[in-house]
Amino acid sequence: VISVSELFAAAPNAHLEDVMHKNPPYVYPEVDQERVASIALHHRHNAVAVVDHHHFLLGTVPSDALMHILRREHVEDLHRLVGIGRESDVAREALELPPLRRVRHRLPWLIIGLLGSMMSALLVSSFEAELTRNVAIAFFVPGLVYIADAIGTQSEAVAVRGLSLSQANLRHLVRGESRTGMIIGAILGLLIFPFVWIFFADFNLAIAVSLSLIIASSIASTIGMVLPWLLQRLGTDPAYGSGPLATIIQDILSLLVYFLIVSIFVF
Amino acid sequence: VISVSELFAAAPNAHLEDVMHKNPPYVYPEVDQERVASIALHHRHNAVAVVDHHHFLLGTVPSDALMHILRREHVEDLHRLVGIGRESDVAREALELPPLRRVRHRLPWLIIGLLGSMMSALLVSSFEAELTRNVAIAFFVPGLVYIADAIGTQSEAVAVRGLSLSQANLRHLVRGESRTGMIIGAILGLLIFPFVWIFFADFNLAIAVSLSLIIASSIASTIGMVLPWLLQRLGTDPAYGSGPLATIIQDILSLLVYFLIVSIFVF
Repeated sequence: VISVSELFAAAPNAHLEDVMHKNPPYVYPEVDQERVASIALHHRHNAVAVVDHHHFLLGTVPSDALMHILRREHVEDLHRLVGIGRESDVAREALELPPLRRVRHRLPWLIIGLLGSMMSALLVSSFEAELTRNVAIAFFVPGLVYIADAIGTQSEAVAVRGLSLSQANLRHLVRGESRTGMIIGAILGLLIFPFVWIFFADFNLAIAVSLSLIIASSIASTIGMVLPWLLQRLGTDPAYGSGPLATIIQDILSLLVYFLIVSIFVF
Repeated sequence: VISVSELFAAAPNAHLEDVMHKNPPYVYPEVDQERVASIALHHRHNAVAVVDHHHFLLGTVPSDALMHILRREHVEDLHRLVGIGRESDVAREALELPPLRRVRHRLPWLIIGLLGSMMSALLVSSFEAELTRNVAIAFFVPGLVYIADAIGTQSEAVAVRGLSLSQANLRHLVRGESRTGMIIGAILGLLIFPFVWIFFADFNLAIAVSLSLIIASSIASTIGMVLPWLLQRLGTDPAYGSGPLATIIQDILSLLVYFLIVSIFVF
């Protein structure tokens, strides 16, 4: 393979063999477009050859097509991350569609989220006795759920972009992320402990909130890594693993951890 | 401007004037790299000329550089969306950094989030009297906060990608998004109403939960559009407007809406 401009720049008496690129990057026709763009980036080539299974050249993906792929994958990742369905390729149109059309693209994931919300309501209601005895337990629910989510979402974003590129195995990756989550949880747990103790004058509750934060953070970062990996394994875009579904799973697990720990420590 | 391959393909007796591209896209040296990539995509050119303010050619940004810019902006948006600080450019490295290094990149935004969590605990505790009289109020807190967040995050993602491209003015954009949020909130509110009424046998609470969902969704989608715009106005990347800070602002507003409505309807 050689580009026309390189051919132009070569010395007049050079042999083609000496100036051409040997072993250029190539793909088969059924390869995902994001993979094609990654190959081009990796090899620092601005076009990728497409060959059939006998290695006959079928054509090339030129650089302007590669650039459009990269932009489209960017918008697609953002949309999947927040649970917007197959919207138009052009982000600008999403901003200017009539509201009812936008609703249709966004509602499906939100309805799944609503089912999750109903589950979370039933879960919290099953700890009604604990809440009645000490209503202060309810004060920390939104904060704890928020923090675990924020940590889990960070892991998901790292996983979504990184999984397809990294050569390390899952166990190694999960160990790294869950340790990260545990360290973050421990630091935040230490910071919130005096706050709860001083403002709410309840030592046991302070212990329970801090401990829940550590455990929920570790779980959140583990799930945030495993879910995108699982989706990739199932042949789906791992970006779905960081959308509203992942959040509601995180929320329910965080609530479960918190109420279980609270029912051990506070009574 | 003409590419070497086009020059090669031109008829031998053609005049340069007839085969060259007139008015090629160009940028000044101080232009943001993301803007350069957008210009290339828009013009379907695979290189962009850089000129000084007297329009002398300084150089070109070739297609492989443009492709790297597009990939880098993609990773950057994802990281800002979840509050990961200036991490390495290569997403793979983020997956393989030692846990303590990762903590350092992620902790700053989480500490701001923790302060927000403390505020949310104080906010909920200020409604202690209501919670004590009817503990069922607490059951719907995580679900409501989750849904409002999910809707707000969708608006943020649309805003982050679309704001720089759209020509429409803010008032028009905000009106469209807040209507979208209100319609979604109304649909979800209608769906959750029978659930609360049947499972928790409390008509007033069902009204309060549904109404809160509608109002909180409208607010969330409005904030989700205004915050990235505000950050863009302040000269920051609008992607920060969809990070953990935006989420905690949404959470606190949703809690406030819910508890105010509950204290009107449930007693």
